[in-house]
Amino acid sequence: MKLHILGCHSATPRSLVFPSSQVLEIDNELILIDAGEGMQIQLRKYKHKFNKIKHIFISHLHGDHFFGLVGFLSTLRLLGREKELHIYAPVGLKEIIDLQFKITQTDINYPLHFHELSAGVPERILETEKFTVDTIPLKHRIYTNGYLFKQKEKLRKLNIEEIKKHPEIETWAYHNLKKGKDFVKENGEIIPNDILTLPPEKPKSYAYCSDTLYTPDIVPLIKEVDLLYHEATFLDSEKELAKKTMHSTAKQAAEIAKQANVKKLVLGHFSSRYKDENQFKEEAKEIFPQVDIAQEGKVFEI
Amino acid sequence: MKLHILGCHSATPRSLVFPSSQVLEIDNELILIDAGEGMQIQLRKYKHKFNKIKHIFISHLHGDHFFGLVGFLSTLRLLGREKELHIYAPVGLKEIIDLQFKITQTDINYPLHFHELSAGVPERILETEKFTVDTIPLKHRIYTNGYLFKQKEKLRKLNIEEIKKHPEIETWAYHNLKKGKDFVKENGEIIPNDILTLPPEKPKSYAYCSDTLYTPDIVPLIKEVDLLYHEATFLDSEKELAKKTMHSTAKQAAEIAKQANVKKLVLGHFSSRYKDENQFKEEAKEIFPQVDIAQEGKVFEI
Repeated sequence: MKLHILGCHSATPRSLVFPSSQVLEIDNELILIDAGEGMQIQLRKYKHKFNKIKHIFISHLHGDHFFGLVGFLSTLRLLGREKELHIYAPVGLKEIIDLQFKITQTDINYPLHFHELSAGVPERILETEKFTVDTIPLKHRIYTNGYLFKQKEKLRKLNIEEIKKHPEIETWAYHNLKKGKDFVKENGEIIPNDILTLPPEKPKSYAYCSDTLYTPDIVPLIKEVDLLYHEATFLDSEKELAKKTMHSTAKQAAEIAKQANVKKLVLGHFSSRYKDENQFKEEAKEIFPQVDIAQEGKVFEI
Repeated sequence: MKLHILGCHSATPRSLVFPSSQVLEIDNELILIDAGEGMQIQLRKYKHKFNKIKHIFISHLHGDHFFGLVGFLSTLRLLGREKELHIYAPVGLKEIIDLQFKITQTDINYPLHFHELSAGVPERILETEKFTVDTIPLKHRIYTNGYLFKQKEKLRKLNIEEIKKHPEIETWAYHNLKKGKDFVKENGEIIPNDILTLPPEKPKSYAYCSDTLYTPDIVPLIKEVDLLYHEATFLDSEKELAKKTMHSTAKQAAEIAKQANVKKLVLGHFSSRYKDENQFKEEAKEIFPQVDIAQEGKVFEI
């Protein structure tokens, strides 16, 4: 799993930065999370293949999180896409996109599926062969979800060196070994699985939480994830403003990370009022040391 | 008058360029013409003051000409705009913008006026103290207008050297001189205006024509303009494709410029299939030598 940051600023009236948008790479599939204006420009800049994107998750319907979507969907049409595309977003986005396609007389000629969300409780919204996605209900001025991405348990790895010692183990048996089964010889003798295989890589997990008021309710949902992206629009010095606008401070994001005992925290959604974004890291580090800040073009290995 | 190019490519699935958008500067006022995605990023990049924009003209409702508008309007709200803003666009744009503001729960707190267009004949849609704007009906797959911007006649310039020879001409008389009136001395003697003043700068004109099929009907409307921006999505080698998609070739744009006897032609709206945009200039030059190509960040003095 890899997280690529395309944009990580809040609605930005003053500076030359991109609003929220990121690409999560899971086993060669690209997942788009939020789609601020210019998202497709950033996708091109960082050379992500548009065709590898099959799922898009939109946290909430504020413009800095979705104004880049309609242009991207139009571009896919121009590129002759045929594969289906799934969009998970709050109720209302389909109406916005449909109206624009109607008035611009655009026929989307690939299968485009909207999955509109309105539940106020966590729900599993996607399960593929490789991963699951659950919502993380957040508290913001408008209906908002974070998303939890979890790889599924992987198969065990073959211990080829050990297997070679047993010529009676032919390749047809490998799949069962990967699934954890012991090998039974013709004479009934058993070779235990843990001799023939190595444990699989631990499945990874990523939680995206933006935008939100400081909400400890989410802690059980994101417990021990490998990577948590949590918004930090403000610093602690503006905590009253954070509360009023239903955003978080760097300190609050760090408190959530600490309570959830996550492996690593990445901060983003910075207000453009701050010139030096390292301030966010410094503030959070006091509470939760495994913290980094998002930056356009930055890649986080999970 | 100055024309600033923010973006000049057609819907661009493959390359890292910006779609149609430009700023026309008339006597310190900025006019926005078309608003492709990322327009506000370009406005910032080239340091145009958002607050100097009072009028926006949208040619037609294809995404590459207006997807950047809603984000810009939202940003103006964040910047605390109070001045009114006027948008001239085909019927339908207001519905698109209104729906997005409704669903995103955005209150636009500055006076925003939509002037929706549907006439199929040229009409004067704006007259200010300094300039007029008329529509240029174009032929495209969807209802489309070009726009003709014309400065009004300016006042004559004072010939201060000559005026100083006549101490009886006091400053209160200057305004009448600028308006072309003779000076009448107390004794009834007349000093002719053309001795005391110099001719004003000739009012300038600019015509924006994008997107359109080759349409000689527009020639009388843009006769002898100082600058004509005409779309040239394709080269002559793709003229059948141009016809089919209701676009023009560089050669056709040059023919329009020649027939209209304009002072200068600028080509734009290039398809991203062409790697070298100088080909457009070369092709047009054969027919109309005073031609240049649009480029992001380029400024044309009119």
